[in-house]
Amino acid sequence: MMRLPVFLFALITTASVLHHSQLRAEEISSASADPLPSWNNGPAKQSIRDFVAKVTTEGGVGYVPVELRIATFDNDGTLWTEQPNYVQAFFLLDRVKSLSAQHPEWKEQEPFASVLKGDLKHALAGGHKAIEELLMATHAGMTTDEFEKIVTDWLATAQHPRFKRPFTELVYQPMLELLTFLRAKGFKTYIVSGGGVEFMRPWAEKVYGVPPAQVIGSSIKTKYEIRDGRPVLLRLPELSFIDDHAGKPVGIHSQIGRRPIAAFGNSDGDFEMLEWTTSAPGLRLGMIVHHTDSEREYAYDRKSMVGRLDKGLDEAKQRGWGVINMKQDWRKIYSFDQ
Amino acid sequence: MMRLPVFLFALITTASVLHHSQLRAEEISSASADPLPSWNNGPAKQSIRDFVAKVTTEGGVGYVPVELRIATFDNDGTLWTEQPNYVQAFFLLDRVKSLSAQHPEWKEQEPFASVLKGDLKHALAGGHKAIEELLMATHAGMTTDEFEKIVTDWLATAQHPRFKRPFTELVYQPMLELLTFLRAKGFKTYIVSGGGVEFMRPWAEKVYGVPPAQVIGSSIKTKYEIRDGRPVLLRLPELSFIDDHAGKPVGIHSQIGRRPIAAFGNSDGDFEMLEWTTSAPGLRLGMIVHHTDSEREYAYDRKSMVGRLDKGLDEAKQRGWGVINMKQDWRKIYSFDQ
Repeated sequence: MMRLPVFLFALITTASVLHHSQLRAEEISSASADPLPSWNNGPAKQSIRDFVAKVTTEGGVGYVPVELRIATFDNDGTLWTEQPNYVQAFFLLDRVKSLSAQHPEWKEQEPFASVLKGDLKHALAGGHKAIEELLMATHAGMTTDEFEKIVTDWLATAQHPRFKRPFTELVYQPMLELLTFLRAKGFKTYIVSGGGVEFMRPWAEKVYGVPPAQVIGSSIKTKYEIRDGRPVLLRLPELSFIDDHAGKPVGIHSQIGRRPIAAFGNSDGDFEMLEWTTSAPGLRLGMIVHHTDSEREYAYDRKSMVGRLDKGLDEAKQRGWGVINMKQDWRKIYSFDQ
Repeated sequence: MMRLPVFLFALITTASVLHHSQLRAEEISSASADPLPSWNNGPAKQSIRDFVAKVTTEGGVGYVPVELRIATFDNDGTLWTEQPNYVQAFFLLDRVKSLSAQHPEWKEQEPFASVLKGDLKHALAGGHKAIEELLMATHAGMTTDEFEKIVTDWLATAQHPRFKRPFTELVYQPMLELLTFLRAKGFKTYIVSGGGVEFMRPWAEKVYGVPPAQVIGSSIKTKYEIRDGRPVLLRLPELSFIDDHAGKPVGIHSQIGRRPIAAFGNSDGDFEMLEWTTSAPGLRLGMIVHHTDSEREYAYDRKSMVGRLDKGLDEAKQRGWGVINMKQDWRKIYSFDQ
């Protein structure tokens, strides 16, 4: 089959959009240069374009003033790949290895001993306590500036085990286009992730165009103190906030102070964020990224250890949430895909 | 003495600015329409204008890119009047009175009984425990939406005991001009207050032009739950974060994720925020509003119960912090001043 040139795709998109919503001249002109070229035409792309057209059409029933155009995005599995494990988990395991020289006692002390032997299953047999111990040993005890450098240095060299590329290249091209499209339409785009806020902030602006103040995540406590005559913020081995499940609306309220009008997630950890977003009056958009492409990425949902999507799949239809089927809806997954 | 017409003041300002910094044509043209008309000419106004000119002059040694232009402002005593008591304290006392009908037991239960008798001194004899009890009885137990309405309704009718005006009219006109000036120069302006974040967010955008996401304050915990089929955030009677003293840099780091380059405060509760801001490398601005005008506002500092300024006054000079002397530096304090 002959591939259609991109400009023909753009014409088809424009024509179908015109059937679904009333657009002004400037909207049509911007629509003809497709802002979402890595999305195949289909219900997912269409519902995004319809929603954006409606909330930005002055005088229309769905119009939302610019200051209320807030869109929130989960990170792991929604903006970048989270398989075979969360990127922050790879970071943690590498940190245990690199810190082990300073901790000879770890060779005989669980959960560190098992991590150093490469036996992750045994290491995590200790449950929450073991995870927290690993987390605090690797993520606390340094200043915030030092931690930022540790994360930045690690990301510069670490590679994904299957794709053999830096993790920051494994971000989804269609979602980058969506972030850019929404911002061009006056939206503020926020990341709302269960991952550590200080693990994401060092690179989120460069990779996603999302500045540190618009990254919301889990956190440990910090303490202000003077070291050698200069103030620092010391990272303490104590959890402060878990930004997951029912914690996501709490984190959103705490940092944004307003309800989003659009939310994008991929796992049941995003269920409450989508519920909070879409249950408010007015036009709202909730969408779930469904991982269906084992060839180009991974296929997983209901029983997955990482990124489990079960309740969300069951309830998406009745709640009016869109499902983004990666295999069908995305022409490209990564920027390096053909 | 004859009063000079405003445009002559503007000419004088422009001339003196030209001596201190290199300005491009557009800077001069904007300088000639004085953006700070309620500020008298003097070192405070001059240091603000010098700082802003330097950090916004491309190619200059002090140039700061737009995304790093972050300015933080304390609220009570820095942006609005905090005497004879914090506005939120007036709110709390009124709430005790209006809730007392539902709590007949308060007539004989401290600290409520003393509050209802108007004996604040005795009510607070119970120290921190009494204050926390009053706070939780008046600020928790409702949803975040309900609390927003309570604050909004109260502010619509409550009046300052001396000025007999709504508290939101007792904001400092020179600081409103400063907020507007900084934003026009690409700054993001944040409020960083010891006061409750949900007490400020309902009106901060309308009054200061600061959106909810840029208001940082003290907070109590909230809990996500479903009520009558709809999600709400319930305000729990449990402190979450105290955004004062060393808490201010912690709050700034948690919500902004970057260090401010300018900070404005008025009490020792702002000391660490100014220290954190001005101890970073590069051009930084730290300023203290000094309450010196008992006629137009209030005069207080070292021994004040509210807004105590002691350490900050002692160390301002050696730390290079500017002191804004309200009596001398402000031509107007409130918008309604002649």
